[in-house]
Amino acid sequence: MGQNLTRKIIAAHLVEGEMTPGEEIALRIDQTLTQDATGTMAYLEFEAIGIPSVRTELSVSYVDHNTLQVGFENADDHKFLQSAAAKFGVKFSRMGNGICHQVHLERFGVPGKTLLGSDSHTPTGGGLGMLAIGAGGLDVATAMAGYPFYVKMPRVVNIRLHGKPAPWVAAKDIILEVLRRLTVKGGVGKVMEYTGPGVAYLSVPERATITNMGAELGATSSIFPSDAVTARFLAAQDRAADFVELLPDPDAEYDEVIDIRLDELEPLIALPHMPDNVVKIADVAGQKVDQVFIGSCTNSSYTDLMRVAAILKGKIVHPQVSLVIAPGSRQVLSSLAANGALTDLVTAGARILECACGPCVGVGQSPCSAGLSLRTSNRNFEGRSGTVDAKICLVSCEAAAAAALTGKITDPRDLGEPIDIPMPEKFPVDDRMIIDPPNNREGLELAMGPNIKPLPVASPLPGEIKGEVLLKVEDNITTDHIMPAGAKILALRSNIPAISMHAFERVDPTFARRALDAGGGIIVGGLNYGQGSSREHAALAPLYLGIKAVIAKSFARIHMQNLVNFGLLPLTFANEEDYDDIKPGDVLLIEDARERMAANNMEVRNVTRGKVYPVKHSLSGRQIEILLAGGLLKYVKDKV
Amino acid sequence: MGQNLTRKIIAAHLVEGEMTPGEEIALRIDQTLTQDATGTMAYLEFEAIGIPSVRTELSVSYVDHNTLQVGFENADDHKFLQSAAAKFGVKFSRMGNGICHQVHLERFGVPGKTLLGSDSHTPTGGGLGMLAIGAGGLDVATAMAGYPFYVKMPRVVNIRLHGKPAPWVAAKDIILEVLRRLTVKGGVGKVMEYTGPGVAYLSVPERATITNMGAELGATSSIFPSDAVTARFLAAQDRAADFVELLPDPDAEYDEVIDIRLDELEPLIALPHMPDNVVKIADVAGQKVDQVFIGSCTNSSYTDLMRVAAILKGKIVHPQVSLVIAPGSRQVLSSLAANGALTDLVTAGARILECACGPCVGVGQSPCSAGLSLRTSNRNFEGRSGTVDAKICLVSCEAAAAAALTGKITDPRDLGEPIDIPMPEKFPVDDRMIIDPPNNREGLELAMGPNIKPLPVASPLPGEIKGEVLLKVEDNITTDHIMPAGAKILALRSNIPAISMHAFERVDPTFARRALDAGGGIIVGGLNYGQGSSREHAALAPLYLGIKAVIAKSFARIHMQNLVNFGLLPLTFANEEDYDDIKPGDVLLIEDARERMAANNMEVRNVTRGKVYPVKHSLSGRQIEILLAGGLLKYVKDKV
Repeated sequence: MGQNLTRKIIAAHLVEGEMTPGEEIALRIDQTLTQDATGTMAYLEFEAIGIPSVRTELSVSYVDHNTLQVGFENADDHKFLQSAAAKFGVKFSRMGNGICHQVHLERFGVPGKTLLGSDSHTPTGGGLGMLAIGAGGLDVATAMAGYPFYVKMPRVVNIRLHGKPAPWVAAKDIILEVLRRLTVKGGVGKVMEYTGPGVAYLSVPERATITNMGAELGATSSIFPSDAVTARFLAAQDRAADFVELLPDPDAEYDEVIDIRLDELEPLIALPHMPDNVVKIADVAGQKVDQVFIGSCTNSSYTDLMRVAAILKGKIVHPQVSLVIAPGSRQVLSSLAANGALTDLVTAGARILECACGPCVGVGQSPCSAGLSLRTSNRNFEGRSGTVDAKICLVSCEAAAAAALTGKITDPRDLGEPIDIPMPEKFPVDDRMIIDPPNNREGLELAMGPNIKPLPVASPLPGEIKGEVLLKVEDNITTDHIMPAGAKILALRSNIPAISMHAFERVDPTFARRALDAGGGIIVGGLNYGQGSSREHAALAPLYLGIKAVIAKSFARIHMQNLVNFGLLPLTFANEEDYDDIKPGDVLLIEDARERMAANNMEVRNVTRGKVYPVKHSLSGRQIEILLAGGLLKYVKDKV
Repeated sequence: MGQNLTRKIIAAHLVEGEMTPGEEIALRIDQTLTQDATGTMAYLEFEAIGIPSVRTELSVSYVDHNTLQVGFENADDHKFLQSAAAKFGVKFSRMGNGICHQVHLERFGVPGKTLLGSDSHTPTGGGLGMLAIGAGGLDVATAMAGYPFYVKMPRVVNIRLHGKPAPWVAAKDIILEVLRRLTVKGGVGKVMEYTGPGVAYLSVPERATITNMGAELGATSSIFPSDAVTARFLAAQDRAADFVELLPDPDAEYDEVIDIRLDELEPLIALPHMPDNVVKIADVAGQKVDQVFIGSCTNSSYTDLMRVAAILKGKIVHPQVSLVIAPGSRQVLSSLAANGALTDLVTAGARILECACGPCVGVGQSPCSAGLSLRTSNRNFEGRSGTVDAKICLVSCEAAAAAALTGKITDPRDLGEPIDIPMPEKFPVDDRMIIDPPNNREGLELAMGPNIKPLPVASPLPGEIKGEVLLKVEDNITTDHIMPAGAKILALRSNIPAISMHAFERVDPTFARRALDAGGGIIVGGLNYGQGSSREHAALAPLYLGIKAVIAKSFARIHMQNLVNFGLLPLTFANEEDYDDIKPGDVLLIEDARERMAANNMEVRNVTRGKVYPVKHSLSGRQIEILLAGGLLKYVKDKV
């Protein structure tokens, strides 16, 4: 029986474990990437591990989140990251060089390699046929130290694409269709592997749009084959030598199969406030739009913005719309500048922002009060834009450009004849904004600005855990809820004591203060707790505030690993209805926690109500050891 | 005896008063401009005056300060400004269209006209031969209502430029030389009128660089003749019809004459923390630079950035330098995009920001801790960059570009052969981002977001003023000290109760709280109190906090007018040494204030120390009436 592509790459990188879905496996990591909002912690953690240089084939440090520099903190972080890259043997992609995933795709991704990134959209690399996985900063730090990455062996879902995309149907619409069908929990524990005749119609950046937003499914990763399209893309990037053909066997087996007819798709839109709240654009057309944002790691490639330029050329942005465009990379921007497309965008009234994540993470361009913002980015969580009552909708570049002209949600099919943007034979390759680490790195120092504070230290799991329920939250709580982003708070990513005071502030602004005053406690969550971004600050802040355990109906993968990494106990209810029984303020008690971890037969006693709830965990033996040791850092230090 | 240019324009616009230096005159205002950070208040004030439409020849509302949109406030302000422009008959320059002074120069400035702007750098228009003056928002609001602008008849200083600028000497070096000679107080009560054979070598944008930074001299305005160079510039902007030749008479008289030999100048630099702290670049070359910012209303024109592009072309920004460039306008950006210069800038590693003020007003790109930032902007006040301990130096575009390449302060003459950038025969003219008000404006509403709060109301001057000295400050306190800018605080410009809590926060963070708790009080200042930006918030916040009077050694013009406009009493010590006698916390008493204003023989009794200090004011009879009435708004309402 044939192998699918995912299993081939896993098999080639398997260090430990059995390739049985659900079982923990260990993977050798070839490449890592970090971005600045998670990177400062990752390099502090790498330093704490205590080895002088990274042991990966390639590690790259990007700066793309905190580029507004409202205050000294961002620039200090940039200096720190540059010094850490030089000291530890990491390539440093300078400010202005672009969004990590776009640049990595252009310059570094290699089919068949494994990539671990401290950003949840790392699966963008799957567009090139690599197994690219998002993780917390500490997981990336340990991978840089040569320690393998542990993850549950995923189920592999085959998404078969049939036919040629219908006119004005974009790659974005394909992934929105997958989200519509599977929901934001639909990918948990899975790799989405795209095959079928439709694949040939999709360029590498289009494939990357799809694998990128696989993150919104909760998937471990998403991947496309490496084929003739991949070969042409790599050649255009002067990297023909990096090409290797990589296909699933013709008779490959999958754990699940989904069929999508591209020729029957229509332009789609994700309505507020979840990426799976997907409907046909035609069904909501006509709603007034206040802002249009085109960019983010999902949709900021050369062909994306060329399509936008073709739509806008000679026209003018609607008087009631602010159109902001952030190109994905310096390569994209210089291409658009050189061929005249940028002139078309500027002349049409687009506000051109620096090549960075920007509005997607709420770093600038917050919409007006109660404004409707149409965005090509990947997440429309409530409040993430920086405006609490804004309504964010997710669409393709084509639909975004159409709305920028009409001032309302518009079916791009109304624009007339479809646009054909050919992929360039050759991109303007210029890596001078990526600094190689020096060969002699002895004596190099880390540049520690005053906002860069030491890591909080986790403790070994105690035998008895007792604490008040400080917060009880609903289903689908995101890491944006737990640890908000936005320019003001992101500036504190290197300062855990300061950033912790913002934990859960949009859910309950009293939480951080209460947690500190109570000397810590317990959080109770619903389904899919901790979905979204990979930020380990969603575990570091609770650690700093004294949280000892999170009891939820279920956890998102990256966040659960982050909790374990920092010594916080993630438990799930054996009976989901027990969730309803617990009230905020109840005192919970877990006895013999250390002893009962292995047997997985723990109980939570509700001291306030005199009840007992059976709870489980889904931790591997290794993860249990990490918790008992007091977090991954302590655990790994002994291993490497 | 011949007339100078300044007096010719004043004579043609004189509504009231004698043209004797120091006497108050009233000028008819032809054009007004506002920007967003001062404009929301200006239009609220215009609304309070109660007339339906502006009565100027032209009024334009720009958005250039608060474009980062970190939170909903900025976008709400933009919506408000757009709605106010439509309602009141004002042209609206949309977000992304550029910096007010650059765009006004390109599209609206007319030789011989008067322009009043709610921005201290409004004299930029003097580069076109117009009499352009910066003022508080309320002065601009009243001018829009057709009320004349009152100002002391200036002394006219003739700055005669001789010879051709030496190689690598820029317009910026000329104004830095003037600042070196005259200091930041040297222009108070004066208009600087540039003449001489050297004028012919300077393009309109270069002249505008010089008149722009006349604001740093404290000058009422600065002006160049309108000559063949002006004619060519206007023709290139498709505005040949706006040209009128305007020269001083050959035998014109001046109150003062200063000679500058351009062929003997050297590249200059203003060191921290004042624009007059000017030395030769050669004397400080070699100091390590962390950041270079090219842009601002001073140096962001087409030729400015073309010179930068020519210097950077084919090279790469030094690895330790962050180079940020904000083009001055959409016209500049689209020109650079169309001719390939933008590709050169991007390829060289420049971070391209939106066409706006940005870093100049501390809106983003704050340098790293203790960083040295070389900037082409106009002010290097301590803390204005957003980084308290940053060191800001002011230089020409050429010197900025040189430092970006070498990583240290560099004499641009080290770059080799000078660059010659011809002015284009024709700029790409496209006014579609400037929205004309509709003809039928009846029933139009103001869009008031939740952050837009009503104006505080001033009271008639009381007979007795008694209060504690809440703050005693040194010489040269700027309006940046009184009411700081930066992205976080600027977002509150439409919300006086909220922004007032930041008053003086870099001088004494307890001030606002103490003032509120004490129910108001008195401020004691040194020389040149209130220099810098025209922001009337530096008067509105003290008004809101209950400040009744400011007693200083001397005042900057715009700020003193702002104090009067909002009913705060500005007094100067008759004997400057009395300043030394007063201590913070002393209780001061002014009796019979209303009665003794006209006689100008007031006394301040120091109740705590049992002393009496004679004080003066330099207010006109009209300004006294305004104070007695309770501010300009009340006073004007009866007049228009």
